[in-house]
Amino acid sequence: MRLAILGTGLMGTSIGLRLKREGQPGAFELVGYDKYYEVAQTALRARAIDRVASTAREAVEGADLVIIAVPVLAIRVLLEEIAPAVRADAVITDTGSTKAEVLRWAAEYFPTHEGFVGGHPMAGKTEAGPRAADADLFVDARWVIVPAVHSSDNAIEQVTALAESMGAKPMIMDAAEHDAYVAAISHMPQLAATALFSMVRASEAWPELSMLAAGGFKDMTRLSATDAAMAFDIAVTNREHATHWLDRYIAALRELRDRVADIEGDQELFKLIAENEYEYTAYRNGKVGREESSGTPSLSPMSFQEMLTGGWVSDKLDEITKGSEERVRENEQRRRDRRDI
Amino acid sequence: MRLAILGTGLMGTSIGLRLKREGQPGAFELVGYDKYYEVAQTALRARAIDRVASTAREAVEGADLVIIAVPVLAIRVLLEEIAPAVRADAVITDTGSTKAEVLRWAAEYFPTHEGFVGGHPMAGKTEAGPRAADADLFVDARWVIVPAVHSSDNAIEQVTALAESMGAKPMIMDAAEHDAYVAAISHMPQLAATALFSMVRASEAWPELSMLAAGGFKDMTRLSATDAAMAFDIAVTNREHATHWLDRYIAALRELRDRVADIEGDQELFKLIAENEYEYTAYRNGKVGREESSGTPSLSPMSFQEMLTGGWVSDKLDEITKGSEERVRENEQRRRDRRDI
Repeated sequence: MRLAILGTGLMGTSIGLRLKREGQPGAFELVGYDKYYEVAQTALRARAIDRVASTAREAVEGADLVIIAVPVLAIRVLLEEIAPAVRADAVITDTGSTKAEVLRWAAEYFPTHEGFVGGHPMAGKTEAGPRAADADLFVDARWVIVPAVHSSDNAIEQVTALAESMGAKPMIMDAAEHDAYVAAISHMPQLAATALFSMVRASEAWPELSMLAAGGFKDMTRLSATDAAMAFDIAVTNREHATHWLDRYIAALRELRDRVADIEGDQELFKLIAENEYEYTAYRNGKVGREESSGTPSLSPMSFQEMLTGGWVSDKLDEITKGSEERVRENEQRRRDRRDI
Repeated sequence: MRLAILGTGLMGTSIGLRLKREGQPGAFELVGYDKYYEVAQTALRARAIDRVASTAREAVEGADLVIIAVPVLAIRVLLEEIAPAVRADAVITDTGSTKAEVLRWAAEYFPTHEGFVGGHPMAGKTEAGPRAADADLFVDARWVIVPAVHSSDNAIEQVTALAESMGAKPMIMDAAEHDAYVAAISHMPQLAATALFSMVRASEAWPELSMLAAGGFKDMTRLSATDAAMAFDIAVTNREHATHWLDRYIAALRELRDRVADIEGDQELFKLIAENEYEYTAYRNGKVGREESSGTPSLSPMSFQEMLTGGWVSDKLDEITKGSEERVRENEQRRRDRRDI
């Protein structure tokens, strides 16, 4: 059996390392190709692949399974290039971050091929390249599988088996659904991190701000370290969903901003912050997916509504109600003082 | 010598642990107080304090140094309560996240006292409480010191020495400057994380979104785990700066959104993303503060402008320029197709 990995960066090399570690020795040959020869050589030295092909076409010749692991726009280039060379019964998949465009390109270059099945492992690192690769990168991550119109059951099964052999949890979805979801939890947050860092970086106070910035700022801007080519390709192949979620985020921020500014709405502001902390804690404690299907009992036995009528949340609300009147009074006093000057 | 720690949560207990570890045994007595008796008992069992006082007033009696480590609004309550009991020559400091209001309260309750000096260690965790405490929490962090109008040199020196004994780097600043800066790099990002998580959490697709969300979403929402009382107190004591930076962030997001939406501006979008990655990498490699005073040579020998005229950034720009015309053409074609239907 022959497998081809096109693109031996973080993803391709991690897949290769895992295949070599989990697979039977000698059961398959892994051929790697990368646009940058040195990158493929690094993957070879890491033993993630068995040999380096000098072109993508050479890599896929005779391959049973082709895995394309490059930034989204480069998938199109590779699909076009390999189309004449891929075996008619080969299974082809990819790891691209957006899926609607990829499936459109697959339909364009492989109009009758039954072996194409899109994929998107929901794992990664901001570090790029084969040196950051890890055979355990995908363990317990979701691996979205997006069949094309023509995909055969066998191809879907093989790609599902690939995801499982990576330690990931396969999840079948259609392309539009996938792109809308990842825009919300990945692409838009990535753009939000870019907007935050570039805005603060451009501030005249940057020398002081950069010295004071601690863990919170680093968390909120860390996605700025994402490989720029990858981030760009995502944005332009998921424009509509990314802008939709940016619009919603801007609206949510404006609403929160008005709530913070409204000195008479402190109770509501606190309830919002406390409920958010409560829900976030539940999420990080494993409350994901549909509750009715989770099986495990809730880790947060008290609902947020119950907390509002007992315990520290209601204590704090009482304090706020008392303090609020005082804050409004003081604020008015200060405004009057300013007018008097 | 006697030291009082009011509030034995994460900050107070971490300070106590460090003092006990670094200080000479028997050289001082550490008295702790917390509104919640159990919290103070936990700090006592961790040996962060020597004994528990049952009221704040009792804790500060005879103390040479008083450290107030509670959420901002609670600082006011404690200052009012301890005012009649604090020794006239005691040094008082705090760890509150905003400083203008704290200094106003100090002036109100200690109008003639020379010992009050505000403080803000730029370190923390989202976990709260004495169990999360760590004697090394402040190592290499900035510790902002905000003298009041009346602060004596001796008081400023003692608070500076306290910060240094924590392993932190003291930085003297005025209250307005401090509050503006931390709004940009801490308070606004905290609100942005709240807006992001609560928006995505409220989506009908939350069951799917929560299953797909990976590291990027967790980074961008992690500040939602901040103790709600602390986050609320920060927002309402730094309203003007927080809303100012939210406004700027909303404007930056809107600009980026328009750039993503503009199919003809791809070169500019890529340059923005690539420059942001470049600057962020430099920042995470230690390029902070004023460059002329950094002393160490730059870790990024090639400037971003140089990268635009050579290397992979310019290669990618060429590709984008070529691909861009095609994307515009395809987009128009699709629009026409849709009209035809």
